[in-house]
Amino acid sequence: MAATNQLTLYTATVRIALDEAGAQYKIHEFGKEKGNKPHWYYTINPLGKIPAITYGGPDVPSDQPSPESEKLTESLALLEFLADIYPESDLLPADPVLRAKARRVIAYYENYVHHAFRAAFFLAHPCESVLQAVDKFQAVLHPTGFAIGQFSIADCAVGPWLARLMLFLRKNLGAYSQEEGDKLRAALAGEKYARFNRYVQDVTERPSFQNSWEEVSAITPYTAVAVVDISCR
Amino acid sequence: MAATNQLTLYTATVRIALDEAGAQYKIHEFGKEKGNKPHWYYTINPLGKIPAITYGGPDVPSDQPSPESEKLTESLALLEFLADIYPESDLLPADPVLRAKARRVIAYYENYVHHAFRAAFFLAHPCESVLQAVDKFQAVLHPTGFAIGQFSIADCAVGPWLARLMLFLRKNLGAYSQEEGDKLRAALAGEKYARFNRYVQDVTERPSFQNSWEEVSAITPYTAVAVVDISCR
Repeated sequence: MAATNQLTLYTATVRIALDEAGAQYKIHEFGKEKGNKPHWYYTINPLGKIPAITYGGPDVPSDQPSPESEKLTESLALLEFLADIYPESDLLPADPVLRAKARRVIAYYENYVHHAFRAAFFLAHPCESVLQAVDKFQAVLHPTGFAIGQFSIADCAVGPWLARLMLFLRKNLGAYSQEEGDKLRAALAGEKYARFNRYVQDVTERPSFQNSWEEVSAITPYTAVAVVDISCR
Repeated sequence: MAATNQLTLYTATVRIALDEAGAQYKIHEFGKEKGNKPHWYYTINPLGKIPAITYGGPDVPSDQPSPESEKLTESLALLEFLADIYPESDLLPADPVLRAKARRVIAYYENYVHHAFRAAFFLAHPCESVLQAVDKFQAVLHPTGFAIGQFSIADCAVGPWLARLMLFLRKNLGAYSQEEGDKLRAALAGEKYARFNRYVQDVTERPSFQNSWEEVSAITPYTAVAVVDISCR
């Protein structure tokens, strides 16, 4: 499954998909400079955001991107791209209906779960809406295994986010009160959310997930974001 | 390009992709009941949201969905599904890099343009952020033609939204002041946004767009939404 083209990843969760595909790639990690990217990075993504992939062109050091490589950005587009160039990886199955279901899980996460947690964590909205969102999300998960049964880009897309949200909740990080936090933790631990919890556990135990997961980096940038968001209320 | 499976669309903008693919389909239009779906629709989408597609199973009336059909939801997943089952339609080109670029345009719309307009329209945020978002979006459009040059699901996904936003702005609908609205209209009409305006014009002139576009239905449900959102400020 070696890529014939050079492929450099400018970090983050797309790495799970690369590892699942057995891809050969170079990774450039941004450390403390997360908020302030070096000048050369803006030739890859003018918005300065990660993740990004350079694809093709000559084999160059990751901080000297070639004008000849394609510069690809936006997480979901990158995951789909990897499923496209590594079809044998089964990051997306061949069956169009199953593919649609994988994409539905991602949309449910983005449209319901993410917003509900964000509102609870940053704006101290009542936690009830988080439970409703998790309920909806759980209902579109395959009864066993990963999001659509077999592992797919849906798990790459939502797994790291869910793991991060659960970590925040365990560490009591967020604008919610102690009481609301306790209520949410207790409710989510209940039998009603057994499928959801099992799913999060299965994803986080996956070796490809473990390779790129660091609790510290999952927390650090977001505690800073929280300050900004809360001041906007 | 006839589908061998029955395919029923439960309305909205996915219709553009179906028409582009030359698909055979049945459409179920919800009229005044937009907010309150009939009971049977919840067997298709438990969330009651449109659009949805039933795919496969016996040929049944659209308000009597078969338990044997697949029930597919979430706009972007549906567009990708149509590109998957009608590969000859070129709704997504074969080249993985071009596919990634089509998906990037959709992500830019969703992540930047949509939010910026929403904040200006519903929360009367300063219009400057709309201009910045349109600037970003314009920069990832192919220099000529549609979003990636050739017509693709990117145009199906963002075209109707952009047309709707421009319509709102022309009709002065929104929470922004007359002064801010005038400023935004004047700025967007400028040479700086020529590529953006040309793109919106090209999409809205496309026959597949014209087939499903009705100015009235584009406005009605959203003026109602605006009331709700503004009251949350």
